[in-house]
Amino acid sequence: MKSMFWKNNTLNILDQVKLPHGVEYIQAKDVDTVAEAICCLSVRGAPAIGAAAAYGLVLGALSINTKDTNIFLKELKQIKDKLLSTRPTAVNLKWALERLMSIAKQNVNLQIDDIKEMLLDEANRIFNKDVEVNQKIGEYGCELVPDNVIILTHCNAGALATAGFGTALGVVRAAHYKNKKVHVYSCETRPLLQGARLTTWEMLEEGIPITLITDNMAGYLMVRKKVDLVIVGADRIALNGDVANKIGTYSLSVLAKEHKIPFYVAAPVSTIDFELESGEQIPIEERAKEEVTHIKGMSIAPEGIDVWNPAFDVTPATLVDAIITEQGIMRKPYKENFEKIK
Amino acid sequence: MKSMFWKNNTLNILDQVKLPHGVEYIQAKDVDTVAEAICCLSVRGAPAIGAAAAYGLVLGALSINTKDTNIFLKELKQIKDKLLSTRPTAVNLKWALERLMSIAKQNVNLQIDDIKEMLLDEANRIFNKDVEVNQKIGEYGCELVPDNVIILTHCNAGALATAGFGTALGVVRAAHYKNKKVHVYSCETRPLLQGARLTTWEMLEEGIPITLITDNMAGYLMVRKKVDLVIVGADRIALNGDVANKIGTYSLSVLAKEHKIPFYVAAPVSTIDFELESGEQIPIEERAKEEVTHIKGMSIAPEGIDVWNPAFDVTPATLVDAIITEQGIMRKPYKENFEKIK
Repeated sequence: MKSMFWKNNTLNILDQVKLPHGVEYIQAKDVDTVAEAICCLSVRGAPAIGAAAAYGLVLGALSINTKDTNIFLKELKQIKDKLLSTRPTAVNLKWALERLMSIAKQNVNLQIDDIKEMLLDEANRIFNKDVEVNQKIGEYGCELVPDNVIILTHCNAGALATAGFGTALGVVRAAHYKNKKVHVYSCETRPLLQGARLTTWEMLEEGIPITLITDNMAGYLMVRKKVDLVIVGADRIALNGDVANKIGTYSLSVLAKEHKIPFYVAAPVSTIDFELESGEQIPIEERAKEEVTHIKGMSIAPEGIDVWNPAFDVTPATLVDAIITEQGIMRKPYKENFEKIK
Repeated sequence: MKSMFWKNNTLNILDQVKLPHGVEYIQAKDVDTVAEAICCLSVRGAPAIGAAAAYGLVLGALSINTKDTNIFLKELKQIKDKLLSTRPTAVNLKWALERLMSIAKQNVNLQIDDIKEMLLDEANRIFNKDVEVNQKIGEYGCELVPDNVIILTHCNAGALATAGFGTALGVVRAAHYKNKKVHVYSCETRPLLQGARLTTWEMLEEGIPITLITDNMAGYLMVRKKVDLVIVGADRIALNGDVANKIGTYSLSVLAKEHKIPFYVAAPVSTIDFELESGEQIPIEERAKEEVTHIKGMSIAPEGIDVWNPAFDVTPATLVDAIITEQGIMRKPYKENFEKIK
């Protein structure tokens, strides 16, 4: 099951809002449909958002009807800004869009149709390389996974959150493929239940033993079930190693510290924001209160109740034991080690 | 709005499963209806369970048709055991039932009808005294609440969880009545959403500012919103001060420690189990997996997924800064101080 695929100038996006009970693809033929799919989380997960946005920019480029390169670039920039504004936290969105924009800018002397083709090539490259990157993350991460292991994860940093294989779940997959005995506990991840809906589904498909818990059970799980390690993905990593990831990640890192359980982050180098010194500068998206007050359209709270709904939180580098990238396992001091792989 | 009331040999139980969208009372005329209401959480919260069980035993007693006191006592014991088996963690259930049983045993020489009347009197006493007890808890607890305070709470330890006024929310109410400026954050409390459904509702009715969060936001809330104190109720407290309470309480206590935020428990003395040395001995109820996989009957996870669903956890006394009872504020060493109020 692919999170997305490109065919006949259409981006087919697996509608993750409908999982696990429905498997439907959105056929995006224009940039607005892609932007909407990112906004409403039909496609989510930092690497998947990056790839979808790249294809979205291609769709936007294809719709520009001009022979004037300056006009083309100007309109392309507007489309890029629209895609960039869909979600503020995941840096892969910006990273992928800027890669395509720089291709366009470097080739202003070519025919516009040729530029459009190059943009599609680059989007394909981002998409295809992501799977390869994740497999490398899995390979490195596997070194940190003992046999007979109990792993706790949060949200979905799996094949669905990427072009395939996954980051945090890529490490789980790699360990499973190497015949290590793995048992995964998945936090359901309120409000949008990516753990309950997506991580469980991916692990069931893969035949990896998985148990679902509510988010507030994580601490007691550590006491009772002897969790060996926690592994999560990331939406943006600052230069000092602070990690923005799905809301609830920070609480897990504090609980892991209390129980002396290693806390790992798995993410591609494209998730590192080399321009941000620390996590304090990472913009944290706050989403609609209805995500908390309603589940599948059904109200679970009194009308008019006030809600705080940050979609992410920031885990300080001090609580992160290692960051697993396709370039190897990074440890403190993160800044120094990140600079080496920039 | 009363969590329950007795009228014409009927226990009217507010069906909390239907809150906040429906206000309906279950008219319990027999012990089975009461037992079912406790099992399915139509009535919940340790003190409310105690009172409901007491009335349930009265309904059971009224249905015993014999003039033989031995037979009466034997049947009453069976009814008590049925009620006792509804939920294992809250000790108030046992406490209330044993109070009624000892009344019956002490009065074997009386007419059975007189014993039945004494049982009802005792159930009324338990019910009525609970409000008074909670008001005292509120009064003592208020001393720990500064003005302009941000309070985080979990589940519902309010009027709905008791005969009235509440324990943890009783402290909040008392502070509000003394014109302290209070802002409450309520964790939604998965799986059964008592925070989202009940605590929000009680605070809205009372006009106390309240904001709803998902359980996994608590850690980040402490970072961002400067929470001043955490206060929760309890289902059973061991002699050493370990506290069993709604699942998620333990995680909050660890997070509170990390952020140097005082962590308080508010509960009547009847919640202290003087027979249990430590929390390790408290039986923790594990409930049906459907509570996690379904919300209001709607599936949110793949079919057949494995689930771990403990209804409570145990917070070690070391993480509890104070236990607020109707006899005053208890601090470490808990065992020594509990023995004084036994």
